[in-house]
Amino acid sequence: MIKINENFLKLKQNYLFIEIAKRLKAFSAENPDKPLIRMGIGDVTLPLPAAAVEAMKKAADEMGVKETFRGYEDTGRGYDFLKEKIKAYYNENGAEISLDEILVNDGAKSDSGNISDIFSESNTVLITDPAYPVYVDSTIMAGKQIIFAAATSENGFKALPDYNIDCEMIYLCSPNNPTGSVYTAEELKMWVDYANEKHAIIIFDAAYEAFIRDKSLPRSIMAIPGARTCAVELCSLSKTAGFTGTRLGYTIIPNELMAYSENGEKVSVLKTWIRRQGSKFNGVSYPVQRAAEAVFSTDGRAQIQANIDYYMKNAEIISNTCETLNIPYTGGKNSPYIWLKAPNGMSGWDFFDYLLNEIQVVGTPGEGFGENGGGWFRLTSFNTHENTAEAMKRVEKLLS
Amino acid sequence: MIKINENFLKLKQNYLFIEIAKRLKAFSAENPDKPLIRMGIGDVTLPLPAAAVEAMKKAADEMGVKETFRGYEDTGRGYDFLKEKIKAYYNENGAEISLDEILVNDGAKSDSGNISDIFSESNTVLITDPAYPVYVDSTIMAGKQIIFAAATSENGFKALPDYNIDCEMIYLCSPNNPTGSVYTAEELKMWVDYANEKHAIIIFDAAYEAFIRDKSLPRSIMAIPGARTCAVELCSLSKTAGFTGTRLGYTIIPNELMAYSENGEKVSVLKTWIRRQGSKFNGVSYPVQRAAEAVFSTDGRAQIQANIDYYMKNAEIISNTCETLNIPYTGGKNSPYIWLKAPNGMSGWDFFDYLLNEIQVVGTPGEGFGENGGGWFRLTSFNTHENTAEAMKRVEKLLS
Repeated sequence: MIKINENFLKLKQNYLFIEIAKRLKAFSAENPDKPLIRMGIGDVTLPLPAAAVEAMKKAADEMGVKETFRGYEDTGRGYDFLKEKIKAYYNENGAEISLDEILVNDGAKSDSGNISDIFSESNTVLITDPAYPVYVDSTIMAGKQIIFAAATSENGFKALPDYNIDCEMIYLCSPNNPTGSVYTAEELKMWVDYANEKHAIIIFDAAYEAFIRDKSLPRSIMAIPGARTCAVELCSLSKTAGFTGTRLGYTIIPNELMAYSENGEKVSVLKTWIRRQGSKFNGVSYPVQRAAEAVFSTDGRAQIQANIDYYMKNAEIISNTCETLNIPYTGGKNSPYIWLKAPNGMSGWDFFDYLLNEIQVVGTPGEGFGENGGGWFRLTSFNTHENTAEAMKRVEKLLS
Repeated sequence: MIKINENFLKLKQNYLFIEIAKRLKAFSAENPDKPLIRMGIGDVTLPLPAAAVEAMKKAADEMGVKETFRGYEDTGRGYDFLKEKIKAYYNENGAEISLDEILVNDGAKSDSGNISDIFSESNTVLITDPAYPVYVDSTIMAGKQIIFAAATSENGFKALPDYNIDCEMIYLCSPNNPTGSVYTAEELKMWVDYANEKHAIIIFDAAYEAFIRDKSLPRSIMAIPGARTCAVELCSLSKTAGFTGTRLGYTIIPNELMAYSENGEKVSVLKTWIRRQGSKFNGVSYPVQRAAEAVFSTDGRAQIQANIDYYMKNAEIISNTCETLNIPYTGGKNSPYIWLKAPNGMSGWDFFDYLLNEIQVVGTPGEGFGENGGGWFRLTSFNTHENTAEAMKRVEKLLS
């Protein structure tokens, strides 16, 4: 009799965004004349950069001609034409990586969960709270124990290592989803030192690195001395270049990174991951890889920067409103997310309902990201200038 | 101290195609004047159908315009425009499935390994021998026990169920890779009856269904009565439509399919899989989904049929050579693979070296697919007519 993996039965059934969708549907059914301004979900809204569109079309044409058709990619880990661009981009950001350490994939989400597969179920995983729900859910699926590290207003929503706590895997995200907080180089160095001391591995989610404007802040953990022996980095073009529906990300695994067998032998994390992917992944669509290559061209870089600037202007509008109203917040300076305290001691869900019912502005209740998200609220900068300004005008009127 | 998942250490290190590549490289280095005719690797060579290229380009253009841009797909399980086409295609093939039972993915390989995640490590997995190596490797990674079911010349390389053997998961592939054998409806019904009796789940790989020309043979296990309570089907456009570098497949999981919790409660396999994918997958690139939709259009269907007919003519050339030489073989009639007995009691590897050294024809030694592959050899029909005919002329001369 086929048995289900019991770990899956431990998952919470009601996913945050399902509950939100339910409440929005109910509101709109009762109030068809009141359009919503959605500032909740973290999806981009500006189109793909023109350079990427053109490159994808050119590659599609190549696929239609026998002489230039491409079938299976040899390695399934990404074409060199793209990995060369990623390597150069990392070098600009102060991180030296080699081509074989770059693994192109269909978006950071897949690997952020799947990477856990290659590590023993006996490892304990440290996850900051609040956090992107995928880290928690995929850790539960993998049957590993979780320790939460509190990210609160006291530490600027940046959890730091505690040497009294032992763990073997650590999920960090900077710029952070949902809080928008960004680790400094000194703070990341504290995590790197801790991980090296404990022989733990940091899974560093850099999906929002392109939104960092303060040049003193690290865009990659690979720029931190010591990271090559303790860190994996996940990155993505989803937010950087509007690839949420086009699908391309990449994982960096340094050659020096080791895990240990039961009898204490060192095992290469990169080689183990390559072995996994060899049996479970067949590479990213060739035209999508060409589109990604074009993102890193001179034209592509200018086009994505214009989009990021557009979103960051929205972030500024939202931050300004928080400052005008004296609402505590993080993010918005080097991140597309603004994480703000619900006023008057409201819970995040109460504030969600309040904004929805009174002014039809939709955000995300902090409770959906963990216990420490209670009483906090996430707004995103991915709507239009017009809608963002209108929403903040309504918020100012409602709360002042 | 971070521990590796010990299951990964149990994998064999030398993967079949790596060893082949090594031998070919050595030969070509010593014999630069002798070009190879490659009939080993199962990759297609004809370009994408024009309908798919045009659809992808149109979708790329849509992605470059704000009004038609698409970000995250709502469900990440495939757009209805594509699922409607797949459903209609299945109906043609005698299988009734609903849209919510279709899960679009980046190719059959990912799900064929990942599906194991949602079932308990305690389940035993039955795999036919020989088989596509991914089934074995991903089962070892998942820590599950394997039972092999012998597919030999005695049973036409079609293993059938043995009620004395208990198992909980069963990998079947028909038309088979590597042997090209195809189960009849009666034989598949025997597996379905066995699985229902044992409360086991069949993972049915239908990646080569489009090569079936005999209309009496089933193209989908979902066309077999009883399959909806015991089977998952994996399918792909890789071979059907030349998508090996474009990447799109789909998995069918019937609503009725159940697994069991430790305390005997029924758990929906579809719902559990959806929960997994919700945390570990974000859907297939929109332009790729549009290209796939176009494959199922009237023009697309005609274009892919022309390609399949081209390959099947090659299969016929190879089969004819086997018949002329009185070499026992399977496949080639309803499959792009021809599985033949190495002559004179040679091993598959000996025959590989013999063909390589004497006539520069490259195939795949059967040993790479399992113990029962010993002494057998796989040729594929994905080269050109000219090369296939030339290779078979050389084989006939060499062996007669």
